[in-house]
Amino acid sequence: MNPTIELLKSHRSIRKFSDRKIPRELLLELIQAGQSAATSNHVQAYSVIHVVNPENRQKIAELAGGQTYIAECSDFLVFCADMKRSTEAAERAGAEVVRGMTEQLVVASVDAALMAQNVAIAAESEGLGLCYIGGIRNNPAEVSEILRLPEHVYPVFGMCIGYPDQNPEVKPRLPVETILKEDYYQDEQDIAQVAEFDKIMNKYYLERTGGNKDTNWSEQLKPLFTSKLRPHMKDFLQGKGFKMQ
Amino acid sequence: MNPTIELLKSHRSIRKFSDRKIPRELLLELIQAGQSAATSNHVQAYSVIHVVNPENRQKIAELAGGQTYIAECSDFLVFCADMKRSTEAAERAGAEVVRGMTEQLVVASVDAALMAQNVAIAAESEGLGLCYIGGIRNNPAEVSEILRLPEHVYPVFGMCIGYPDQNPEVKPRLPVETILKEDYYQDEQDIAQVAEFDKIMNKYYLERTGGNKDTNWSEQLKPLFTSKLRPHMKDFLQGKGFKMQ
Repeated sequence: MNPTIELLKSHRSIRKFSDRKIPRELLLELIQAGQSAATSNHVQAYSVIHVVNPENRQKIAELAGGQTYIAECSDFLVFCADMKRSTEAAERAGAEVVRGMTEQLVVASVDAALMAQNVAIAAESEGLGLCYIGGIRNNPAEVSEILRLPEHVYPVFGMCIGYPDQNPEVKPRLPVETILKEDYYQDEQDIAQVAEFDKIMNKYYLERTGGNKDTNWSEQLKPLFTSKLRPHMKDFLQGKGFKMQ
Repeated sequence: MNPTIELLKSHRSIRKFSDRKIPRELLLELIQAGQSAATSNHVQAYSVIHVVNPENRQKIAELAGGQTYIAECSDFLVFCADMKRSTEAAERAGAEVVRGMTEQLVVASVDAALMAQNVAIAAESEGLGLCYIGGIRNNPAEVSEILRLPEHVYPVFGMCIGYPDQNPEVKPRLPVETILKEDYYQDEQDIAQVAEFDKIMNKYYLERTGGNKDTNWSEQLKPLFTSKLRPHMKDFLQGKGFKMQ
């Protein structure tokens, strides 16, 4: 295993950070490493909001469900899917632009994610820790208002970055055979493999909590799908011009 | 700049590959490195189809718009957003599952992208080259049929991987100041910065083609938004159970 693959495999979310600040030059280096990721047709359909204002970070921490590390970490970034810049550039070049296509939602969300993952790896390669914050989609309209996001830009997720002040274990993943399929989608083995994975996760939760958290993967998933998780997303995205046409 | 950041910044798409095959163990290592990426609430909402059958690779190459390297590269992977496995696991655990939410489309597309970007970086760290294939969304229904993708699974993009037989330049990116914004979305500078970037891209295209390709970033974007790019995506996704509710 080469050192880069070792780094990738050692990822875990960090939610407790020291007071040490990331130098501005390093932060720019991370963002530029992010920009080097592949991008659909060179569109670069993303913007990153670096939230510096402490009050805004506090507000976003609350809107994301009380995730205090959003206010505490060295740097908090919001990765936005941005179809504004590229469509306007095409328009200035004389194109009669069509907006609001479902394809554009996919392109911009994927572009933002590829870029962010490069930022994450660059950060970890410098000894920094991070966690993604999907919780900004709990209240995406309010977050968008704080960040003054215009139409055709939406906040996909946030990212807390800083110097780690904790050293959590790496969380197990599904067996690779469950994820990787040859030629066709086959899931005959899924039930058995998930049952096996539930045992692994049960052991993981019990060990981490001194026996207090007796749960597993399937149990942990239940609240995500029983309630309509983030049912506002359709209206929110449509209101932002991602009409999913 | 540490070696990992250097690696990230040296990315360029590879579309010409040598005949050398990637060993199976290395391919598994890449996928496992992919699985180590962050995943929303530990859902791991992805599957990867490793397309081995040469006829199917040929067909997909045609469906993706004649991208012959899909058939020629050592390994061709299709990264799928997969909400089937996790929702069924929650169901077996007793949840009354809600499907088809817009949020689930975002979660699964982002999860697949984060995972794929780790695979990409792991591959490049081993001296491999790759290119993403968004073109499988030209004919996603036909591709899904070939791969026998069930409901709640959709092909987000493909990836060609192999040992490079070309050494293209790194493609320029927008200035970091255009992407990174402090506290608020501001794009007053965008027009000037994009104009500047158009000059850089014009130089890049002219130099690469011995003066034949006199275009720039904005010009290259035009066909992407003038025609309704992939207008079938809404119906396709809804037909696959991603109803965007």
